[in-house]
Order: sequence, then structure tokens, then C-alpha cells
Amino acid sequence: MRPLDALQQSLHKRVLVEMKGGRSYRGVLDAYDQHLNLVLSAAEEVVKDVVTPHSGLTLVRGDSIVYISP
Amino acid sequence: MRPLDALQQSLHKRVLVEMKGGRSYRGVLDAYDQHLNLVLSAAEEVVKDVVTPHSGLTLVRGDSIVYISP
Amino acid sequence: MRPLDALQQSLHKRVLVEMKGGRSYRGVLDAYDQHLNLVLSAAEEVVKDVVTPHSGLTLVRGDSIVYISP
Amino acid sequence: MRPLDALQQSLHKRVLVEMKGGRSYRGVLDAYDQHLNLVLSAAEEVVKDVVTPHSGLTLVRGDSIVYISP
Amino acid sequence: MRPLDALQQSLHKRVLVEMKGGRSYRGVLDAYDQHLNLVLSAAEEVVKDVVTPHSGLTLVRGDSIVYISP
Amino acid sequence: MRPLDALQQSLHKRVLVEMKGGRSYRGVLDAYDQHLNLVLSAAEEVVKDVVTPHSGLTLVRGDSIVYISP
Amino acid sequence: MRPLDALQQSLHKRVLVEMKGGRSYRGVLDAYDQHLNLVLSAAEEVVKDVVTPHSGLTLVRGDSIVYISP
Repeated sequence: MRPLDALQQSLHKRVLVEMKGGRSYRGVLDAYDQHLNLVLSAAEEVVKDVVTPHSGLTLVRGDSIVYISP
Repeated sequence: MRPLDALQQSLHKRVLVEMKGGRSYRGVLDAYDQHLNLVLSAAEEVVKDVVTPHSGLTLVRGDSIVYISP
Repeated sequence: MRPLDALQQSLHKRVLVEMKGGRSYRGVLDAYDQHLNLVLSAAEEVVKDVVTPHSGLTLVRGDSIVYISP
Repeated sequence: MRPLDALQQSLHKRVLVEMKGGRSYRGVLDAYDQHLNLVLSAAEEVVKDVVTPHSGLTLVRGDSIVYISP
Repeated sequence: MRPLDALQQSLHKRVLVEMKGGRSYRGVLDAYDQHLNLVLSAAEEVVKDVVTPHSGLTLVRGDSIVYISP
Repeated sequence: MRPLDALQQSLHKRVLVEMKGGRSYRGVLDAYDQHLNLVLSAAEEVVKDVVTPHSGLTLVRGDSIVYISP
Repeated sequence: MRPLDALQQSLHKRVLVEMKGGRSYRGVLDAYDQHLNLVLSAAEEVVKDVVTPHSGLTLVRGDSIVYISP
């Protein structure tokens, strides 16, 4: 298995995305590429326990991501 | 779907662009490239709830972007 | 339109260049390349409302740029 | 031996992954690539002695990693 | 004109080089390359108005440079 | 001599590895590559005079390294 | 002359290497490559006027270097 295969298993499922700087996102993983750029739907931003919902598809830039987990 | 396809769906629509360092921009997405460099028209900069309108086309450099959402 | 085409429209016109770290420059855009390296003439540096004029052509390195607007 | 061969020896074993910024992860190394992107199963995040378990497969982005050890 | 052509015009003339982190250098531009690595002769370092002269040729690494002006 | 040849001379000998951010490692250099990724055995981490031994082979990511010395 | 030619002139001579973050090294330049990775012999580290001698050959990673001067 290669690392990106783990994302394939999470496709169309809810993931937690932890970002550099302490921000994180939760949402359904709709797309990804080899740079770890992600598209999340039904996304929420979580900063210090404050949750902000996003409407529509959110594109998260891969180079700010620390980890992605289910 | 690939991540940049989500931008294609937002073309000529209003987007919110969150930057590294806490700044964000709102504007109409007029162009993008594979580096996530963006052109916004009718753009506004938002720093800690202070909104500054920009005139003309604003080019935002992709490597400072954290996420883009509708 | 691609993002760099927005710069083409600003060529030989005054632009505002916002940098990482809070500095910004105003000047006439005389040249640019695909790295967003810029040449400004009649440039002024603005740091926290203190304006410092530059003489001659100023070369601004692209990777420190956050956005460029008219 | 090349550096990535050390990871091959740790495959399917528990590793400690120290990240830039003081965070670390413990988990079973299920996959890696040449960018040091890792997949950990049964992962735990450790920040200042607070341990948070992760469910499922965690993908850790290689460019935030400082070191990996058994 | 391309941005590096502005450096060509400054060759063998005094330039001011502003660095990330608040340091700057003044000196005669003796050489440059496409990474904006520079060689300055008769260089002085300026940090918060303290000027330190350098002897010989100083090689300044391009990726720490913010701007170069006459 | 090229810089990596200095590492060849240190192979299977104890080295000190100074990292960005003030951390350092001591250990036997078992492997390296052109990115300066290193494998250390019998490694110890040193942070502000606190020494923590590592078991097994430690893979240190090259882009966090400042210098390597015997 | 190209910038790296200035290093050629300093080969086997004492140089001062200023690093990002305020550290600097003095030593004899024994080798360099196009990434500005350097090998110094008889090196000393200088941090806020505290001088620490290094034994053997020190390999300094190029991407942490700000400037190199005689």
C-alpha cells in the first residue's frame, strides 16, 4: 500500500484534516491529488473548539496539511 | 473529480479565500492556475473583521492560500 | 484568462504589492515573470503607514508576495 | 543502506514520529513513500504529554516530519 | 523587459538588498544568477541602523531576498 | 571534494546533527542520501541539555538539518 | 562572473557564514556545491558572541545560509 491509497479508502467518507497553525477541518472527502490538495463537502472549520460550517465545496491546499485521518 | 475541478465550479462566482497568517479575501473568481494563483474581481480583504475593498483585478499568490470555499 | 494575464493588464500602470510580513510596495509595474518576480519603477515602500520612496527600478522577489492589485 | 531502507525495517511495527512544532505521533507504520508521507494505524497523537487516539488509518504529510524512530 | 534585466542595469553599481527578517545589505553588484543569488563587493550589512562593513566578495543567497533596488 | 563526501568520511562514526529549532541529535551515521536524510543508530536527542536516548534506527529528515559535524 | 565563482575564490580560505536565525560559522571552506551546501574545517560556531569550536569537517546545509563572506 502507498500513502495515497489510504486517502482512496476515505473517499466519500468523513475525514479530519489537521492543518499547520492549529486549525482543522472536518468534512466529506470528495477529491484529492498527489499534492494532498483536498476537496471537502459539508465541511466545518474547527479553531480552538469554535466550529464554523462552510457551504459548498472547500478546496484545502495540501502544503498546509499536517495529517488526515478518518 | 480532481481538486481543481472544484475551482472550475466556482469560476465567475463569489469565493472566500483564507490565507496563511489570518488574512482572507472575498471576491469573484475570474481565473486560476495549477499553482492555485487566483484572480479575484470586486475583491475585499478581511483582516480581523476589518474589510478593505480592492479596485480592479487582484492576483493572489497560490502558495499563501490555506483554503478556498464558496 | 489565466492569472498572469491580470498582470499583463496592469503593465506600465500603478500597482499595490502586499508582501508576507506586513510590508507593501506601490509603484509602476515595468516587468514580471512566471515566478511573480516584479520590477517596479517610482516605487514606494509602505510599512505601518511609513512611506519610503525608492529610486530607480526595484526588483521584488515573487515568493514573498501575497497579492498584487491595481 | 539508504535512509528509506530504515523505514522498510520498521514496516508493520510501531514507530514514533516527531513533527515540526512539537507534536508527535505513535502508531504502526503501514505505508510510506519517498516524500516520507506515512500511513499509521492504531495511531495516537501526543502533544505535551496529552495523548489522543486516532481511529482508522492516519496519513501524515512528510514535509512536517522531523524524525521517525522505532 | 524581464525582471532580471533590471539587475543587468544595476551590474557594477551600488544596490540596496533587503532581506527577510529585517536585515539589509548595501554594496556593488558584481554578479547574479537566476535564483537571485548575488555577489556584492564593498558590502555593508545594516541591521536596525547598525552598519557593519564586509571585506572581500559577499555571496548573498537569493531565497532570503525580499527586494533589490539601486 | 564535494560536500557529501564529508558525510562519506563520517559513515559508521559518531556525528552531531544540529536541527532547525534548537534540537540536536548525536548518533552513529549509518546512511545518508542527497537530500541529507540521515539514519542514526544509538541516537540521543539533546534539547536544552536534556538527553533522551532513542532505540533502533532513527531516520532524520534532511530539510530540518542545519549542520552535521563529527 | 557568476555568484558561485565568488566561492571558488574563497576555497581553502577562511569564510564567515551567516545563517537564518542568528547563528554564524567561521571556518576554512573545503567544499561547496550548487545548493550552497558547504564543508568547513577548523570551524567555530558563533551564537550571540559565544564561540564553540567544532572538530573535524562540518557540513553546513545550504538552505539555512543567508550569506557567505571572507
